[in-house]
Parts: sequence; C-alpha cells; structure tokens
Amino acid sequence: MSIVLTGDRPTGPLHLGHYIGSLKNRLDLQHKHQMYIMIADTQALTDYFDRPQFVRDNIWQIAQDYLAIGLDACDIFIQSTIKALPELTMYYMNLVTLARVTRNPTVKAELKQKASKESFEQSAPCGFVCYPISQAADITCVQAELIPVGIDQLPMIEQANEIVRKFNSMYKTDVLKESQAILSETSRLIGIDGNAKASKSLNNCIFLIDSPDVVKQKVMSMYTDPNHIRVSDPGNVKNNVVFHYLEAFYEDKEDLAAMKAHYKKGGLGDVTIKQKLIGILENILEPIRERRSKIKQTDVEAIVYAGCKKASKTAHEVLYKVKEAMHLNFDIN
Amino acid sequence: MSIVLTGDRPTGPLHLGHYIGSLKNRLDLQHKHQMYIMIADTQALTDYFDRPQFVRDNIWQIAQDYLAIGLDACDIFIQSTIKALPELTMYYMNLVTLARVTRNPTVKAELKQKASKESFEQSAPCGFVCYPISQAADITCVQAELIPVGIDQLPMIEQANEIVRKFNSMYKTDVLKESQAILSETSRLIGIDGNAKASKSLNNCIFLIDSPDVVKQKVMSMYTDPNHIRVSDPGNVKNNVVFHYLEAFYEDKEDLAAMKAHYKKGGLGDVTIKQKLIGILENILEPIRERRSKIKQTDVEAIVYAGCKKASKTAHEVLYKVKEAMHLNFDIN
Repeated sequence: MSIVLTGDRPTGPLHLGHYIGSLKNRLDLQHKHQMYIMIADTQALTDYFDRPQFVRDNIWQIAQDYLAIGLDACDIFIQSTIKALPELTMYYMNLVTLARVTRNPTVKAELKQKASKESFEQSAPCGFVCYPISQAADITCVQAELIPVGIDQLPMIEQANEIVRKFNSMYKTDVLKESQAILSETSRLIGIDGNAKASKSLNNCIFLIDSPDVVKQKVMSMYTDPNHIRVSDPGNVKNNVVFHYLEAFYEDKEDLAAMKAHYKKGGLGDVTIKQKLIGILENILEPIRERRSKIKQTDVEAIVYAGCKKASKTAHEVLYKVKEAMHLNFDIN
Repeated sequence: MSIVLTGDRPTGPLHLGHYIGSLKNRLDLQHKHQMYIMIADTQALTDYFDRPQFVRDNIWQIAQDYLAIGLDACDIFIQSTIKALPELTMYYMNLVTLARVTRNPTVKAELKQKASKESFEQSAPCGFVCYPISQAADITCVQAELIPVGIDQLPMIEQANEIVRKFNSMYKTDVLKESQAILSETSRLIGIDGNAKASKSLNNCIFLIDSPDVVKQKVMSMYTDPNHIRVSDPGNVKNNVVFHYLEAFYEDKEDLAAMKAHYKKGGLGDVTIKQKLIGILENILEPIRERRSKIKQTDVEAIVYAGCKKASKTAHEVLYKVKEAMHLNFDIN
C-alpha cells in the first residue's frame, strides 16, 4: 500500500477521454493504495489567471464528476486550500535554475503549443514557467510515492525527483522522498469528429454529464468511412471514429474482432455499429448519472473539505520538517 | 501618518554604512509613521540557500542591532513567518512575464555582478529571478504606502506597482494599493580601506557591535593622503577616507570646513583628525552599546514575535481579500 497522487486542472467537465485515460484506472487504484486526487486550481490559474470564476465553477463540476464515477475511497482536495504548497514551492525555487525549468520538455512543448513565436518562452508568465516546481511541491506535500501519468508527463516526475535529491543533499536531511511514475497504457481518445485532440473548445467530446439524448446524437454524428454508402459495401475500420471508440470501450474483444471482419467484408451498417457503441457507452454512463442524481452539492463540499483538511495536515507536517531542515522554524505562539 | 515598510537581508551584522544609509532615517520615520521593518530571511535564502544556519543566526543579530539602535516604536518581523507571503507571490507570478522580470534593471545588475558570463541569467535560480515579485508581496501584504529605498532599488517599487495595477484591473478590485518610494539622500559609505563597497567579506566596515578598541584600531588604519607625511605638509581631503567619514558623521559642518582648510594648508595631523573621528563615532556607538547591554535574547524574541503576529494578521487579511477577488476562498472550518 503506497501513497498515490493524481489530479486534474479544473478547466472543464470530465469526458470519456479522461475516463479511459485515467479515471477508470483510479477506480482501481483507490482500493489498492491510499490515493489523493488534487483539483489543481492554482495550477489552472497559471494558464487561466484571467478567468478565476471559470476555474472556481469547474472545481465543483469536477468534484461532482469524481463522486459520480465512484471515486469514494480516496481523498479529494483543492490545491489552493493547502497553505503549505506555495511556501514549499518558494523554497524549491531556490534549487532550480531558470535554464533547467525552461529546458523541461513538457514545459517546452506546452510553450510551443501556445505560440508559434520562438520568443514565447520569454512572454510566458513566471507562474507558468515555474509550474513544474510547484508540481514538486504537490507531490512532496502528501509524500506521494506513485504518480499515475501519461508518458508526456514523465519529465515532471524527473524534475520533482531532482528537487527532492537536491533538497535532501543541500540540507542534509531525508525528509523528502522520491516518487515513481505509473505509466498508463491507454492511448489518447480522439474527438467524435476524428480530431486527434478531444477538447471542450472543439465541442468534440462526450462528457460524463451528457444526457442519453446528447450521447446518442454525438455518436450518431461520428465520422465512419465515407465510401461505406450502402450497408452491403465493404467498409474501412481504420480512421473510423466508431471503431476507435469501440476499441477503447468494448471489453468483448472477440465480438469486436468479428464486427470488424463483418464491417470490412460488407453487410454491417453504420447505424448498427453506432447503436452498439451507444449501448456500451450507456453501460458506463448510466450508473454515473444515477450516482450523480443522488449527490447534493453540500455532500460534495463536505467530502472535498474533509479531503482538504487531511491533505493540509500532512502538508503542514512536511513543511514543518522542511523548514526545520532549513533552520526556518520559529517558536511563535 | 502612512504605513512604511523597510528591512534588511539577514546576511551579516549591521554596520555604519547601514546606519548612515537607512537606520538613522528609520529612527526618525518610526515616530512619524506606522513603520514595519522586515528581516528578509526568505529573500536572503534566494542567494544563501546553501547557508541556512548563517541566515538564521543573522536574523537575531540584526534584530538585536535594531533594538540597540533604538528602533522601538515600530514592528519588526521575520519574512518567513508570514504565511501569506508565498501564496501572494504565487498569484502575482501569473501576472508577470519572464521577460519583464529579467528586464528589471536591479535584477539585471545583480545577475551581472554575480557572474561575468552572459548566460548567468539562465543559470540563476528561479527563486532569485522572481524575487522582485516576492517583494511586491512584501509591500502589499502590510499595505505599505511608503518605501524608503536607494535610487538603485526604484525599479523594484515600479515592478510592485505594475503588479498592483495589473491585479486590480484583472480581478476588478481595489484591494491592492500602490506604494511610493522615499529616496534617501545619503550616498553610500565607502569601506575603511577606501574600497567603494563596504562589506563584511572585505572586512572593511565598522560594525555597530564593534568594541571601542576595535573602532579605534579600524579608524587608525584608515587611508588618508600618502603625501601627507609630516603634520606640517599640506594634505589632500579628496579620496581621504577619514574626511569621507567626517562628511558622513560630523554634524558641525562649519568646524568640518575649518578642519578641511587647515588640513589642506598643512599643520593638521592624521592622528588628530582620526581621534576627532573616533570621538564622533563613539558618540553614536556608545549609546548603542549601552542599550545592547541591557537587551536579553528573550526580549528580542518577544518583541520580534509580537511584530510577526501583527504583520501576519494584516497579511492574512490582505490575502483573504486577494483570494476573494480571485474567487479562491473556500469555507473550510
């Protein structure tokens, strides 16, 4: 039993991409480990500093999503409520050079994504540039040992461990612990329009809050094979969004293989495979909807606030030891 | 009556350069305004992160110096005890680009001083690069209106005011207030060896803790005019360390003018002017020594901790309003 830290930026409701990419895995992890889920509002603000109410609203949206999915054997907390975090970050910032943090491949890629200009590194806010350091604070404040991440996030764990090693050696202590990544195997879910990126702004995701009608309409609009005009025509399963989703969500791999063969040969209609997919997705979404209907906002708040208190307590203890190692504790009553 | 913020990095005992450059001015300010003095240990650590015990020791040294000088009508606090500060800094970091902070003339000059390499900007720790942002947090956390600074520190006030304006306009609030610099007129005191920089590492300062014997020995070792061999020789008052100190500390400007004329003409010996200077310095230092002899470490702690509590309370209120403007307050009991 290890301590696991995972989380999301509250910048939109969770969708099926999140479900298959990480949430499903967390449902499993919460029973094997002591798991924390951090709603990274402070981190979201490094990007969305001009939209604080949007971030605020999504904190509760995402917390409700977690509970609706069944993440009820873990501790959910809001990043900005952990007072130890900014202080830890400040101390870690002395241990990382500007060169090191801007060389971080994840930060580099994100900066590039944001602007085509080479100089964007310079026009990025300091908060954004330093967020890998703030992530090291997130990880260490709950003494996390395992961090489930996608492969693109590996440099963040490496950066955090570098800080841990540097801190421990600089201040002759062993208070901070290194963490390990758990790589998720699942590849990214594409958008319902076939776009590689599923995002709220592209309006191409199926959200966990979508009603059956909306799910149906979204699946029905999915791109299949433009040459598959009549049911009897042979069809292509490659670049076929419906089969991409079936691959991700249909657990009967034997039946899926048979469906693919049938579709390729001809005789399996788009409406049939779409209805099949709707059924499979509804098997996931219906229990989520049912759980959600029973959750009151006051319950969400009570659960999240309890998580905040627990994470805060641990973080405070870590900060105390960190400051002790730095000779920075004072006896003020 | 305004709120004044001033302070020092705890990286060595205070010396006569501090006295003439800022401490004397503070003795006056503390009776006209509500004055805070911040012992900037967190800021010192951006530079001295590898010497935490050194910083810690100097916190108490410097606090004792303040009280010995007679700074007893103000609030002295330790930066690292103000929990609101790192959090304010983190939010402000989203409002300042990396380009803006590295273009700050004070930071630029300090980076250059530290290394001849052009690339030092990149090899500086993030904590150092971002310290102007952290200074904006210092200023705003006690709602300071007036900041006594040297001319080289003006860009820091400008940077802080930029953050204040950006925050208020971004979050549609008026919670943060701009501050004004009070420029000190006094020029920098040179070292007793004539070096433009008086510093502990060069061992060329007269410290407020120096004993009468040490003061005497330091003044006697001062560089005067190498061509002023016999008392009757005409002497040069320019580049003459003793006259530089007399300019700074002797308040009878008429007598000083007469001494200069006498020295230039010939007939005024180095030993005589040095003994004159010793007397003038002792008039300042003796009362400081006497006050110091009556101070117990427990008194210093009690006074500083009371200051920490007061500053902390104000800072907490400011942070509350800042978070309110950012929709980041949660009702966790």
